[in-house]
Amino acid sequence: MNIILIDPAEVKNNRVTLRDRRSDHIRNVLGAACGDTLRTGLINGPMGTSTVIAIAGDAVELATSHHGPLPDRPAIDLILALPRPIMLKRIFSQAATFGVRKIYLINASRVEKSFFSASLLAEHNYYPLLLRGLEQAIDTMVPEVSIHKRFRPFIEDLLPQAISNCLVRLIAHPGPFPFLPQTVALPLEHRAVMAIGPEGGWVEFEIDMFRAAGFQPFAMGPRILRVDSAVPALLAQLNLLRQLNRPTSA
Amino acid sequence: MNIILIDPAEVKNNRVTLRDRRSDHIRNVLGAACGDTLRTGLINGPMGTSTVIAIAGDAVELATSHHGPLPDRPAIDLILALPRPIMLKRIFSQAATFGVRKIYLINASRVEKSFFSASLLAEHNYYPLLLRGLEQAIDTMVPEVSIHKRFRPFIEDLLPQAISNCLVRLIAHPGPFPFLPQTVALPLEHRAVMAIGPEGGWVEFEIDMFRAAGFQPFAMGPRILRVDSAVPALLAQLNLLRQLNRPTSA
Repeated sequence: MNIILIDPAEVKNNRVTLRDRRSDHIRNVLGAACGDTLRTGLINGPMGTSTVIAIAGDAVELATSHHGPLPDRPAIDLILALPRPIMLKRIFSQAATFGVRKIYLINASRVEKSFFSASLLAEHNYYPLLLRGLEQAIDTMVPEVSIHKRFRPFIEDLLPQAISNCLVRLIAHPGPFPFLPQTVALPLEHRAVMAIGPEGGWVEFEIDMFRAAGFQPFAMGPRILRVDSAVPALLAQLNLLRQLNRPTSA
Repeated sequence: MNIILIDPAEVKNNRVTLRDRRSDHIRNVLGAACGDTLRTGLINGPMGTSTVIAIAGDAVELATSHHGPLPDRPAIDLILALPRPIMLKRIFSQAATFGVRKIYLINASRVEKSFFSASLLAEHNYYPLLLRGLEQAIDTMVPEVSIHKRFRPFIEDLLPQAISNCLVRLIAHPGPFPFLPQTVALPLEHRAVMAIGPEGGWVEFEIDMFRAAGFQPFAMGPRILRVDSAVPALLAQLNLLRQLNRPTSA
């Protein structure tokens, strides 16, 4: 927990009382005492600092100050053929950690239909995983998640509008395709959307539909990755391609 | 399990009988029958194919044929401040999946000493994790693991010889350092070694020692990653920098 995230609705007159794993963290991991200043952020809002003003039992009261600018929203959207729940669980946190603006979970020919019944797809189950990813990365902007049970209506009706701002459109697929650096104009500067297929890959019809929507297929390389490895790997690679034009982190 | 890995010692006269999770996989996931051909490989040896010649109970007998060339060994070595066991477990498989030649697990100021007592550091415990990573990636070359409880003797006495073939030497560290693309000559072509620190990072003395050994510090970016996300992310990024000179996977 590299930042403590607070829901704006929890704050009243710049005061918030925490009683959950955040107060545990403040007391037991940070070992904070009254008067200490902590890095905090408002969910989907600015970051700032808060001062511990009271610790009583398991409750920690903070005086909050969040007046910075809004963090930049990530410039990557992710379209993901719905993976099995055990993988999706990790992917939610990873996507938030690496920085994703929108996550579209979609159907595809090789997606097991039962995956759409997973309890993990309820917002109250996946939302905490997104927050954990943000707490790790020091960010406040929660990825927007949407779920689409029918492939074709998603691609034909929803996608064109949804990705109209994404000039870079990529679809990962094993096969005789160029690698990522030869698929995008370098350095990567525009907002990008990336589609990652199910175990077993996309079927040809799906590739064709994505191509018709302006997506370019690329190959990751000879090694086969599980989806929960492919997602962080590809997000890290796109971040790297953006760094080609930003010489330093200073 | 995208390839079935067989220990050369298991094979006699090009026959092997499997009775463990490999035979489960062949029977229950692949649903193979006598006469079917499977992708197999000899551990640290060539890949090839094997033909199912008998299925009896939970045993599967294969006629093996492994006459291809040895797979290329990965061109990345990894130096890792020993992480907590729950993370290290994932890292073993990930390192094998992404392709690492050698894994040096070392001590550092911010490594908890108790981690060196973890049962996971026994070869019979981590070796199966390495194999699972290779089974995923379709590779046979097992990363070599070594464990070094004392930082300074590792850096001063062992490292110079161990990395004499690694022309690219990198150390990941948060701070005002250049990003990876500005740290290595592009495209990346040489064998590389990368050092990744503990939770909380390297201390200054450690950075200085690595610098003296020819390592260049680089920053990953503003987002803080857990070690078990940083390892696949950085391995994927180095792979990408190699792809700058290999236009296609075909």
